[in-house]
Amino acid sequence: MNITTNNITINKSEASKINQIDFDNLVFGNVFTDHMFECDYIDGAWVNPTIRPYGNLSISPAAKVFHYGQAVFEGMKAFKDSNGDTFLFRPKENFNRINSSSKRMAIPEFPEDIFFEGLTTLLKLDKDWIKPGIGNSLYIRPFVIATQVGVSASPANQYKFMIILSPAQAYYTGDVKVVIAEQYSRSADGGVGYAKAAGNYGAQFYPTNLAKEKGFQQVIWTDANEHKYLEEAGTMNVFFRIKDSLFTAPTSDRILDGVTRKSVIALAKKAGIPVEVRPILVSEIVDAANSGDLKEIFGAGTAAVISPVSAFSYKEKTYTLPEMTKETKYATKFKKDLMEIQYNIAEDSFGWRYPVN
Amino acid sequence: MNITTNNITINKSEASKINQIDFDNLVFGNVFTDHMFECDYIDGAWVNPTIRPYGNLSISPAAKVFHYGQAVFEGMKAFKDSNGDTFLFRPKENFNRINSSSKRMAIPEFPEDIFFEGLTTLLKLDKDWIKPGIGNSLYIRPFVIATQVGVSASPANQYKFMIILSPAQAYYTGDVKVVIAEQYSRSADGGVGYAKAAGNYGAQFYPTNLAKEKGFQQVIWTDANEHKYLEEAGTMNVFFRIKDSLFTAPTSDRILDGVTRKSVIALAKKAGIPVEVRPILVSEIVDAANSGDLKEIFGAGTAAVISPVSAFSYKEKTYTLPEMTKETKYATKFKKDLMEIQYNIAEDSFGWRYPVN
Ligand SMILES: Cc1ncc(COP(=O)(O)O)c(C=O)c1O
Ligand SMILES: Cc1ncc(COP(=O)(O)O)c(C=O)c1O
Repeated sequence: MNITTNNITINKSEASKINQIDFDNLVFGNVFTDHMFECDYIDGAWVNPTIRPYGNLSISPAAKVFHYGQAVFEGMKAFKDSNGDTFLFRPKENFNRINSSSKRMAIPEFPEDIFFEGLTTLLKLDKDWIKPGIGNSLYIRPFVIATQVGVSASPANQYKFMIILSPAQAYYTGDVKVVIAEQYSRSADGGVGYAKAAGNYGAQFYPTNLAKEKGFQQVIWTDANEHKYLEEAGTMNVFFRIKDSLFTAPTSDRILDGVTRKSVIALAKKAGIPVEVRPILVSEIVDAANSGDLKEIFGAGTAAVISPVSAFSYKEKTYTLPEMTKETKYATKFKKDLMEIQYNIAEDSFGWRYPVN
Repeated sequence: MNITTNNITINKSEASKINQIDFDNLVFGNVFTDHMFECDYIDGAWVNPTIRPYGNLSISPAAKVFHYGQAVFEGMKAFKDSNGDTFLFRPKENFNRINSSSKRMAIPEFPEDIFFEGLTTLLKLDKDWIKPGIGNSLYIRPFVIATQVGVSASPANQYKFMIILSPAQAYYTGDVKVVIAEQYSRSADGGVGYAKAAGNYGAQFYPTNLAKEKGFQQVIWTDANEHKYLEEAGTMNVFFRIKDSLFTAPTSDRILDGVTRKSVIALAKKAGIPVEVRPILVSEIVDAANSGDLKEIFGAGTAAVISPVSAFSYKEKTYTLPEMTKETKYATKFKKDLMEIQYNIAEDSFGWRYPVN
């Protein structure tokens, strides 16, 4: 391993805590590696890119992030192949997206070179935390928070960009049952739904808890105006298979432009599976469920990759998706296709793999 | 002064920094008093209410507040009368509202007794920071943040409730010119707009910056569906005076139920001013501006009390409000009425004053 950087101050941890971690029993997003990356925005510039031991921040209780939610984040993963080489999956997409999220939240954009230099340097330092084996990965959380002090509602002039890393195992969501939103909503036209803005997530917890109390794990959000059109889940875009065609909602200012979503669309097209990206009425899906044409619903997102839905509830009625053999499920195919690219098993005809050397 | 509490641990600051503060040149929300109150939610209970010297928090970079915006706040003020006695204005409203905000953000509600005991104990300790004189006040910022570590999108099981205090002078906003929103929006039906959830504020910064670039200070938000109805401003509810009647939008799940708003409505009714609380079309206001019937627009909120609007822009046209003598303005009347109650000058026929002894 060769860590050279002229730009980043590196302050290594004295001892690794890796031996204290039970890698066979990881809870998603709870354990963090030895180091973290940070970079501050002060006087109009991103300065002092630093890697230091993972640990607490000292931050004012009046920092604007606490009061005005001026915060954005990303979620991406690093994978190790059987040779021990590390790969990212389409990281440029995440880089672009954090900046488009930042723009909407009046946060200064982050420079591409520092993003990639910080990220790859950090990954090299903590490379032992990326375990080989299909399903294992290192979840990467870049984020930006407003650190300027002030309890007046205006954009901060100081920010902190950080990257923290959390080892992850295959994320088995089990049978996901979802509720289609009829009353609550996730985002408005002209709002911030398309951004990975922190507040979008906290706002979903209460209605998601209500779904959980009824035995469902997630909510599929609908348009806030009429609750007629299907949009996306809390941290996943959603696909519907009717007969042999795939349907997913178009992205908009209400819907996150997911990397997994666009990868599934590309893989489907390559495989000759008909894909329609268009507004999807709840009533179409209910009709297709009633007629038996609705074969599959699945979520697509970095954390779980592909997450099959086994049932959905709408207007007090629960619709169960038909049993299908694993082999005939699109969900199985796309998960396999994606993971074979991610773990450097299959040919990377789209150029999605990004080696970390 | 008599500070007794059995429940709150008090750790006093060694020396006050009050002499370093230029009370004649305060920037709103930038200077904080000597102490702060905090209380943690751990294992299902609010524990360890503590007052300690104002200072930084040590907090994990993986705390959920940074990633999922699980955070709510309040804004209220303390006033000193000419005898040196301190009063709050309708604090029970703020207490109730922080809990209704918390509920929507899946944050556990805070107990009323600890809220008031923490608040009044803190105010007594830092009472020298409340300067007498009309216009001077102490801005009070209670807030709750999710402190549990974890980069998975689900509600935290640990929180911190805090109160910080910032001395404030009369808040002269000058001539406020506003833009009526045509494209961006603040909140959705079924969303969190009625809550003082942190993310609602950061989400407004970008469209407000666009307004500022055109020479306007604030945005008056409209409904996200059609941008046809007037809702509220960034941190103020809004009133319109057509001829001699007042109009303001009803509260809803998109609009904050402001304490100043409801106080203005009560004062107007008492004074025999006709008030209509009903959906207000943008087109009505434009028509009234064109016919000369639109006399005033003003914002109502804790920070500025009443903030007169001098002009608004809609569909690329700017409408200037008529010049009126100060004496004939409703804005002047309500500001005076409110402040005379707040500063213990007028009789408190509504029972809004809350003495801090
Ligand atoms: C709201 C939302 N939708 C969809 C996704 C899926 O996006 P991606 O595939 O880029 O992880 C995420 C997660 O990142 C999300 O937060
Ligand atoms: C969105 C919003 N509207 C209105 C108000 C005014 O409310 P209040 O009069 O209770 O301060 C505030 C400020 O608290 C606010 O944040």
